[in-house]
Order: sequence, then C-alpha cells, then structure tokens
Amino acid sequence: MSVNSFGRLLRFTTWGESHGPALGAVVDGCPPGLEIDEGKLQPFLDARRPGQSKFTTQRQEPDQVRILSGVFEGKTTGTPISLMIENVDQRSKDYSEVAKAYRPGHADYAYDAKYGFRDYRGGGRSSARETAARVAAGGVARLVIPEVSILAYVTEIGGDAIDRASFDASEIANNPFFCPDAQAAARWATQMEAVRKSGSSVGAVVECIATGLPAGWGAPLYGKLDADLAAAMMGINAVKGVEIGDGFAAARLSGEQNADPMYPGATGPRFDANHAGGIAGGISTGQPVVVRVAFKPTSSILTPQPTITRDGDATELFTKGRHDPCVGIRGAPVVEAMMALVLADHKLLHRGQCG
Amino acid sequence: MSVNSFGRLLRFTTWGESHGPALGAVVDGCPPGLEIDEGKLQPFLDARRPGQSKFTTQRQEPDQVRILSGVFEGKTTGTPISLMIENVDQRSKDYSEVAKAYRPGHADYAYDAKYGFRDYRGGGRSSARETAARVAAGGVARLVIPEVSILAYVTEIGGDAIDRASFDASEIANNPFFCPDAQAAARWATQMEAVRKSGSSVGAVVECIATGLPAGWGAPLYGKLDADLAAAMMGINAVKGVEIGDGFAAARLSGEQNADPMYPGATGPRFDANHAGGIAGGISTGQPVVVRVAFKPTSSILTPQPTITRDGDATELFTKGRHDPCVGIRGAPVVEAMMALVLADHKLLHRGQCG
Amino acid sequence: MSVNSFGRLLRFTTWGESHGPALGAVVDGCPPGLEIDEGKLQPFLDARRPGQSKFTTQRQEPDQVRILSGVFEGKTTGTPISLMIENVDQRSKDYSEVAKAYRPGHADYAYDAKYGFRDYRGGGRSSARETAARVAAGGVARLVIPEVSILAYVTEIGGDAIDRASFDASEIANNPFFCPDAQAAARWATQMEAVRKSGSSVGAVVECIATGLPAGWGAPLYGKLDADLAAAMMGINAVKGVEIGDGFAAARLSGEQNADPMYPGATGPRFDANHAGGIAGGISTGQPVVVRVAFKPTSSILTPQPTITRDGDATELFTKGRHDPCVGIRGAPVVEAMMALVLADHKLLHRGQCG
Amino acid sequence: MSVNSFGRLLRFTTWGESHGPALGAVVDGCPPGLEIDEGKLQPFLDARRPGQSKFTTQRQEPDQVRILSGVFEGKTTGTPISLMIENVDQRSKDYSEVAKAYRPGHADYAYDAKYGFRDYRGGGRSSARETAARVAAGGVARLVIPEVSILAYVTEIGGDAIDRASFDASEIANNPFFCPDAQAAARWATQMEAVRKSGSSVGAVVECIATGLPAGWGAPLYGKLDADLAAAMMGINAVKGVEIGDGFAAARLSGEQNADPMYPGATGPRFDANHAGGIAGGISTGQPVVVRVAFKPTSSILTPQPTITRDGDATELFTKGRHDPCVGIRGAPVVEAMMALVLADHKLLHRGQCG
Repeated sequence: MSVNSFGRLLRFTTWGESHGPALGAVVDGCPPGLEIDEGKLQPFLDARRPGQSKFTTQRQEPDQVRILSGVFEGKTTGTPISLMIENVDQRSKDYSEVAKAYRPGHADYAYDAKYGFRDYRGGGRSSARETAARVAAGGVARLVIPEVSILAYVTEIGGDAIDRASFDASEIANNPFFCPDAQAAARWATQMEAVRKSGSSVGAVVECIATGLPAGWGAPLYGKLDADLAAAMMGINAVKGVEIGDGFAAARLSGEQNADPMYPGATGPRFDANHAGGIAGGISTGQPVVVRVAFKPTSSILTPQPTITRDGDATELFTKGRHDPCVGIRGAPVVEAMMALVLADHKLLHRGQCG
Repeated sequence: MSVNSFGRLLRFTTWGESHGPALGAVVDGCPPGLEIDEGKLQPFLDARRPGQSKFTTQRQEPDQVRILSGVFEGKTTGTPISLMIENVDQRSKDYSEVAKAYRPGHADYAYDAKYGFRDYRGGGRSSARETAARVAAGGVARLVIPEVSILAYVTEIGGDAIDRASFDASEIANNPFFCPDAQAAARWATQMEAVRKSGSSVGAVVECIATGLPAGWGAPLYGKLDADLAAAMMGINAVKGVEIGDGFAAARLSGEQNADPMYPGATGPRFDANHAGGIAGGISTGQPVVVRVAFKPTSSILTPQPTITRDGDATELFTKGRHDPCVGIRGAPVVEAMMALVLADHKLLHRGQCG
Repeated sequence: MSVNSFGRLLRFTTWGESHGPALGAVVDGCPPGLEIDEGKLQPFLDARRPGQSKFTTQRQEPDQVRILSGVFEGKTTGTPISLMIENVDQRSKDYSEVAKAYRPGHADYAYDAKYGFRDYRGGGRSSARETAARVAAGGVARLVIPEVSILAYVTEIGGDAIDRASFDASEIANNPFFCPDAQAAARWATQMEAVRKSGSSVGAVVECIATGLPAGWGAPLYGKLDADLAAAMMGINAVKGVEIGDGFAAARLSGEQNADPMYPGATGPRFDANHAGGIAGGISTGQPVVVRVAFKPTSSILTPQPTITRDGDATELFTKGRHDPCVGIRGAPVVEAMMALVLADHKLLHRGQCG
Repeated sequence: MSVNSFGRLLRFTTWGESHGPALGAVVDGCPPGLEIDEGKLQPFLDARRPGQSKFTTQRQEPDQVRILSGVFEGKTTGTPISLMIENVDQRSKDYSEVAKAYRPGHADYAYDAKYGFRDYRGGGRSSARETAARVAAGGVARLVIPEVSILAYVTEIGGDAIDRASFDASEIANNPFFCPDAQAAARWATQMEAVRKSGSSVGAVVECIATGLPAGWGAPLYGKLDADLAAAMMGINAVKGVEIGDGFAAARLSGEQNADPMYPGATGPRFDANHAGGIAGGISTGQPVVVRVAFKPTSSILTPQPTITRDGDATELFTKGRHDPCVGIRGAPVVEAMMALVLADHKLLHRGQCG
C-alpha cells in the first residue's frame, strides 16, 4: 500500500525530489521477454524535457534515463526495472524566502501541515519534475501494449480552444504546444509570449485518445478502467478535472442524444458514436478511450500574493526565476504516460482474471 | 488487491447483484469503540432508497441494513463490519430479450466481452443498486470523522442549473431532487415530469462539500486526496466527469485569477478564495473540499435503439419498466458516501504515517 | 490493504465472530464460467465441522454455506462471491468471568491491549470458528485449480508421530484424526480419550501436499510461493511453526544430502528427491509442494491458570465447556483450504504476469 | 500489489540483480522528522557484508549505501527514501556453463520455467546479494521503532547447537558466526574450516528476539504479526522453516506445559513463561517476540550434481568459485532487518487504526 506506487499488476513506484541528486521509478510486474533499452524510453522523456522552447521553464535538464535492473541481453526479465534520471541543473539559488513563507497555490503549506517539515527547494517532492519518472515508467508500459496507440494533445490554452474541424495529428509535433490545429498554435504563440513577458500564467486542457485496445479491459466495481484513469490523471501536478468521453457535456444531453448505438461489425460491434469514451461499466468497449484533463494555471506568477510565514505572520511572495507559464503544455506527455500505465496494467489484470 | 474493494486503512468490499438474494459491504479497519447501530446507518440508505417519488425508479426496496459482525454492545470492535441489505422487489419479469441482446449505453456488451458470460437480470453486478452497499459503508465512515460535515446536492439537471445566489442548504431536503434552490427545484419538477412521460432521460451534476477536516490529510504522490476522490467518484455508475474546486473552469483562468491568497488566521491560515477546492499537492489545506460530479443521462429510454444480439445480429432494444429517468438525482447520497469513505480513510492513513 | 483479506488476484475477505449471527467470506477475483453450487463447497465444511466425534468441540453447528452473489445459472460470473454461514449453536452461557479476566494463552489480553474493547463471547473474532469461512473460500479456490490435488493429514499428535512406512492416504477418512496410519490412529484414540477426560490438551503437526501444479507459480521476491504459504499457515489459529520441504531438518543436512538432482524427464525435469518441497527461489518446480504446520495445544484446559483481571488484579481461570482438546486435528481441512487459496491465487498471478 | 514490495504502511520495494550495476530499495511511508544519514544505515550493511572472514564468500563488495531521496537537512521528510548500493565486484567470469544448464537446488530452473528467460549471472535476481537492500531498508525501519531492541544470532550450524546455558549476547560480535556461545563458536570454526576445504556446505538456524515493543501490535486476522513475520522470514533466500516462540516443540507440549500464566505487573501483566513468543491471536502481548529461522545448506557445492540443460539433456554441474559455505551465517543480519521492517510497519498500522 505504498502511497508512492500506482498500478495493480504492472505497478510502479517513484522517488525523488526537485533538488535531490536524482529521481526515478521502479517498475514491477513487467512481463518477461520484451525488447527494451534506454533508447526506447528516451524519446518520451525528450518530449517532456524542459528548456526546449521559451514557453517552458528554462531549467536545463538532459533527463537521460538509465536502466539499472530488470533487463538482460536487451530484454525484460520479469524482475523490477529500476529507472534513474539524474538531476543536473538544480541551480543553487537563495531559498531563504520560500523556506520561511508559503507560496500560495503551491503545496508548501499543505506539506508543512502534514509532515511538520519539508524540502522547500524547488517544491521538493511536490515539484512537477517528478513527472519525468512517470514518463520513463510509461515508456515501459507502452512495450506491454504494442496493440495500443496513444496520442495526447492540448486542445485549449487560456480559454482559447482548437477548432475540431482543423484537427491534424501531424501538426502536434510541429509546435511547442502539442497542438493539433496549426492556426490555434499560432494564436497560442502570441498569447503565451504575452503571458510569459507579463510573468502571468494560464491553464490548459489536454485530451488523450487510446486506440487499438480490445473490449474487456477494466475490473469492476472498484478497479474500473475509468476510475483508474481518473485517479491517474487527477494525481498529475496541477490537474483539477478529468472527463471520460463527453464528460460534463454528457450531463447536458438527453438519453437519446447520448446513446452509442451498436451495429453488427466485422469483429465485434460497430458503433457510430462514442459519447461514452470507450468505457461502459468500467470496462473497455473496444472503441477509442477518450480522456480530457484540466490543468490549472501555474501558481508561480510575478504578481506578489498575500501569504503567511511559517510563524503565521503576514507577508507577500512572488515567483522569480524559472517556471512553466502554462504547466499544462508539458502535461501532454505525462497524460500519455499515465494512459499507457493504466492500460498496460489492465491488460495484465484482465489476462490474470479471465485467462 | 481485490477489485471490489476500495480504501487503504478503512477499506470496504462490496458484493451482490441487482437480482440476487442480497447485497452487502464488508468494512474493514474501522477503529474500535465507536457507537454504532443500524439506526445510525439507515437514514443514509433511506435518502438513496428508490420509489420515494415519481422521479425515481418504482422498484420498491425497503433497503433495511443489517449489521452482521464487528459490533459488540453497541460499539465497533475494530474487526470487520459486515453489512447486508436484502433484495426484496426483484420483479420476475421476462429477461429473454436482454439475455440475447445488448442494451446500448449499458455495460451489457462490455461484461460479455470481459467475462464471456453475465447475469443479465437488471444489469447484474453493474446495476446502480450496488450503490446501496456504498451508502451503508459510507454511514460507517461518517462515524470515523465526526469532525467533518458532508453535504451533496444537485446543481444541474438536463442543463438547467441552480442560481448560486439562491443557494439554501435547508431546501435540499424539501424536494425530491436534493436541490438547494427552491425555484430550480420547481422548474426541475416540470422538466422531469415531461422527461418521465416521454420515456426519455437527462443527466445531472452533483456537487459535494466537506467542511471541518484539518490541513494535512492526503498521501502524495499516488495516494493524493484528490486522486482518490476522483477514483471514488468516477467509479459511481453513470459518472463521466469529476472536478476538484474550480475544475475545468480553472483551465480558463489566469494565475492571478486562480490564486488562493493566504492571511494570518486564528488557527492556521485564513483564505479568501478556494479555487483549489481545499486540496494542494494532494493534501487538504483545511479549506472546504469541493468536488463536482457529472452524471450522464440514464441509458434506459423508451426510444428503440439499434443494437446487436449476442450472436452479432442487428436488432433494436428499448427499455420498458422501472428505471430512474435521471440517475444523477439519487447519485447525491452516493457521492456523499464516497466522500465520507475517502476522508475517513485518509484520516486513519495520516494518523498512521504522521502520528 | 484490508487486514481481513488475503490473496492478490484471488482475494478473499472474511468477517464474523464466534457468537454473532453469522460469519462469511467474500471471494473476489474468481475467474468466470466455473461450475459451482453450494454442494461443491459443503463437503469441505463438513470435514471441518465440529461435533462429529468426541475428540472435537461438542458445539453443534450445521455449517451450511450459502452463496449470496457472484453465481448465475450455476456458474461463476467473475464478480465477488459472497459466502455466508449462520451461527446456530451460540449457547447462551454466562460470560461474566471471561468478560472480567483474561484467559491465558488466548488472545483476550492482546485484543484488549489493541482495541481497548473486545467481544469476549467465545473468543469473538479470534475464535477458530472463523476458519469455517476460510474453508468455504478454499472450496471456491479449488475450482480455479482443477489440475491440482491437495491432501492434508495429521502426522503427529502430542508427540506421537505416524510411521511413514505405514502411510496410506485411504486411511485418512477412516478415523476422526485425519491420520494416514491406521495404527497411529488407534494409539491417538486412546491418548485423546485420556486427554479429553483429564481436561488437558495436546498439540499436533499437520502436513499438506499439493501435486499437479506446473513449474513457474510464485512471484519473487516478495510474493514468493513459500512466503505466501508461510503467512497463510502461520495465520491459522494456534499455529506456531511452518516448514517447506525438509524445513528445520534441512538446516542439519549437508549440501550434498540436501541436493535435489535433476534428470531429463518426459515433460520437464525428473527429480529423485524433494528436499526443497517443490519450491525454489519462491517459484514452484513442478514437484509436489510440501508444507508442515505445527499447532500448539489448545489453551483451554481444565487446570486453573493464574491470570489477571481487566483491572489488573490476580485471579485464576480454567475453561469449562466446549472446546477441541487438540485443535490441530480440525486444522487439517483448514490447512488444505489455505493451500488451495494460495495456489489458485498464484495461478492467476502467473497468468497475468507471464501470459 | 508489487510482488517486489513488502509491508503495509511502511512499505519497501527492492530492485537489482547480482551482476547489474547496482541494487537498491525504495522505502515508502517512513514518518517525517527522523534523524537519518548514511552513517546510521552503514553498520547494518557492514555486518552483512561479504568477504569479512574466510567462512563467507570472497566477493569483495564495499556495500556503501547512498540515500538518493526522502531526506532533507538530516531528517526524513515523509517522502520515499531511495537507497542505492553499487555492485563493484561482479567478477567477469565465464557463465556459459550456467547459461546452458540449471544448477540443482538453485532457482535457475524455476526462473526459466516462469519467465522463459533469465539473467544467469550469479543467480541474477535470485542471488542472496539482494538481501543487502533489505538490510539497508531495515536500517530505516529501526529509526521508526527506537523503543525496540532487536538481536539475531546463530543457534545451530550443521546440526551443532549452542548451549543455552552459555548464552552471552556480548559474544555475538566476537566471532564470524554471530554466535552467542564462545565454545560453540570455537567448534564451528573447526567444522566450517573442514566444510570450506571440502567444498561442501551446511545449514544453520538463526534466532531473533525483539524486546521493548508494547502489547497491541498486529492486525488480525490476515495481517497477524506472526503471519507477517513468517512471510518475511520464509522469503529470505535459503529459508525453509519459521517458528514463533516454541514453534514445533509446542506441538509436543500439553496445554499445561505450554501455558504462559499472567500475574499483575507494574505496567500490564507479568508473565513467567513465553512459549507463545510474544504473540497471541496475531497481536503482540508485550513479551519479547521470538522467531526462529531454518536455513538450508548452500546449494553451491564442489561435488558435481546431475542436472539437465535448457535443452533437456543430462549433464552435471558443480560450483567453482565464490560462495558462502553456510549462507545462514550472514542470514542473521537479514533476519534482524526483516524483524525491524515488520515491527515498524505494524507500529504505524496500529497507530493508524487504533489511534
């Protein structure tokens, strides 16, 4: 019942702080015989890596992942895969201010209330830097589900949404926003430039679609596929909302509008709608699994905010230095990783329970 | 790793089907010495009970809960509390149609795809009737957290939202919709009457607020309070979206707008906003915990829907008989129960880890 | 992390006290489609049932098991199987003495120290009566592993061991001691009669052999098959020791004596010794799995024992009335059940992880 | 449900192989604010370290432990503590023989049967080298239970037992056998010299006593303290038997002989015997917890053993090179570590459940 682990049969545990020597993940339960090396994991880390555009934090981290165990002669052995990423650019700055006072919107106060003590350097354990470990673990998970394709992209930044009619998956890699709509990407570049210069921040919505999984994954009633996805996504730093399929919009539809009628198909049913987002009763239906995730605006802003010190006195804090003006952007690779981890886990669980 | 259990230190396991002899929950980990009897649990079951207004299913179930273990001389003993609710009104109707074909929007096809076999009577295990067991377990959880008040209510039905300015908690019990706005309740009565008569269905949004819990509950990074709440809520039948605090709206705010500034307070900080919904970094901040849950419209409607048979042939199905035209309404007591279960669990977990 | 649950993929949770209305088990994770009814479980309960010879407690319990969920049309559905056994013969005796003082050797003092409160009637939750629920759950587990045969028998009572040369499995059902040696059974009858009459008690050793399982079950390093068996057996009431294969005797052998050489066989290796008890590195080798379990003498004896009251005063207690003079005898069916539960769980786990 | 993790609230996960770059443990759930640094863990690793006498493997490993996370300013933060030990002396020898054939008594065949693939270098994951990670984790666990003293020692090697009358705890550190009886240690030195020279091996029995823990730790019925200890000990490499208190000897006692009478004491009861080994009903009684563990003789011996190749052909293998002629000796620090891990876990669990 480690509270720093996630998953059932494919279970990973992460460790590490923003300013410690390294961070990592131990992935347990990976089936044996899968071809793996660092090169298969690195591209996912590179997608999440900071410092690649002016719209993300300028912290320079190579995020090179090392495999320390669980692999022999280029294949997984079935034993725990230990992944380590060294921290390189923990800039030695003056932390005396955040040591004494709580940054509003951050986890500073909550950690102190819980533990009576905290590593205040760069947010410590609560830093989004930990998501590098998730992304590395997600790379392993992908090997477990070669039949599944996963794609995450940003659909909205600061309230400006993409035009669904202009959706082009090939655009996603062409801009620093994981944006599938070239025109929206152009608008976002202008908007983000202003946000960055003013020291403000904005939120974002990330959507993720998984295709290729069969019907039957998911474990009702308390290991439902959608419930596990909700936990996986809500646990990502800065996430405040999760939707499956039509999500909150479904609450505004009638039963007739929300129906996903079924027709005879070549292999299983053919659907002509997917309001359900590929999951019914907590089990996959064979349709694409669709998840949408809301990221709040980064709490670190230049405008001073009223707050209190550890001693309870009034003060103000603002955030100098490096941060993502829109943390949701780099959330896209993290959402992909969590999707992969949940689906891989459920593939194994289904195989164990239903043969 | 039972997939029909939820929770960490306070862990409950449910069992039972819509048309079996009974359903129940085993609640493990309840601290000893708490005063309890059936009378303390029954009011929550009564709130969820069907057949109380014309806007819910007409199935008549007394939903009397029995305590079979874990209690001695009116107090919890620290051993498992077994709760059982007999099914009384499993009307013997003709199930030959749903035995052969899949009801679209229901879990029928997914269960068959997973298990190759299903109890088709009334949805079997996937029936929302199982939520009676959650509500009973939630009643036990409430005893663990007497310092916490939990209130859930419906904020929106079929796209018609309450007026926040008219919010009156005392109204919630005055109408069959758990609606805190008397005028909205009146409108909903008209709307639901039409929905019911036409054999259609609508969705709803339920909001739940917990007050009184201290800062410090929640277990980062993979036992975060918000992630556990997300799993708890998304796992309820018909739920498609979960928000904490401002949720998706936060994605449209700037960092300045979304800030929750802190000021010196009598006991801990005083906040003048709660965009975060009472949780930062997965840990409670001492502010009210706010969760919002989207229920899709009931899939059971009178309009025939195209579907397929188990043999893969085209057919049509429509739902005669008893069902909730808006399953979200009776979702309110279930959301309350899940909130109680998650908070009680985290209280114990925090005590174990941080003393 | 329910502390009243056991298993990983096939996980069961038990509930109930000696003098409550009923006790039961919820078995989760049972694969779908297995043929099952009460009649398939009852024989195992009958084997454990009290009151069948003068050498066991005279409490009269029919121990009729009811299946309340998870089964449809005679087959498992993959959903939780709820099993209930009503308590019938909770004789209303005077418990005022044990309410006030602690029976030495029993769990009375420990429960009070832990919970500050206890159900003192017949030992409450700590009563061996709970093992009826394990045996029922074990009956389900057996359906999961039709390829495995499990046989437990008593090899020693009160220090008097069977003669291995006279081992005859068909004798086990011919005497009330689960004894595979007719001559030993005759001796034990004499010995036990004296023990019973004097109000004393004796210990026993139970051995259990499982054959038919393939090589490859077990999950190193912290889900080893032998470690799980050790936990399963040590958790049975009155058990104080567990051995796999040669156990403690292996500690007195040389490496040459303890070797289990391998030779080419028809399907996998052929072994000509089984010192290891069928498990190497926590994984089954395909040889019979051999476990030996030590039961202490029943703590309930007629000779008064010094003890203290709840208030800390000196007193004496002795046990009148119904109990097993050798609790190890009826331990045999319980050991079988736990073996079945562990093996079935590992079969599913192996299938999940290694396909 | 990681199968490479152990514990409930204090949960550790180990990773690493004999011949990989490193091995380690992630310890989750350690309470915040405990003073810690590498120097507090290293002595335990040093006690287990190979190459310190001629009676252990000559592999030279400094076993320097590094703390990579979870510690700030010399104190635990409540976040995961990542511990890493680099492998230094993975001698590059020729593994072609063990790559092709299975060493009898080792896990080689079982791993291949399970995974279809294995890291054969030095036993891979099944090497006792992994116990270094347990010992490091155990060092953290000790910080959680400062009230408890733990002492493990070898009571028997190759069938030659210590004289209990000569027990002297201060002798344990005076010989390479963790032997509390100076005369036995002298005899063992002679015996082991012969064993070593002949290339044979012998088994051993390790006893471990924990004192200072209060009554009330342990979580019945499937998280019993003794059951968890049994799993913890049986999971150590080469262990084949576990006893609590009198263990198998208790099975040969009468109820009168096995009684642990209670008398009024200064703080709780006073006992004048401890047949139960400090645990009743799965809960600690406040008496010393006593565990005894049987280690089989090391399977690696110079005498060639019949075995088969991966292709199923007959061959013979014998073990050249470095190994422990009595693996039980260095088992003593590992048994201590597992005792610490189980007790620390149960301290937190008890605090969580019973406040």
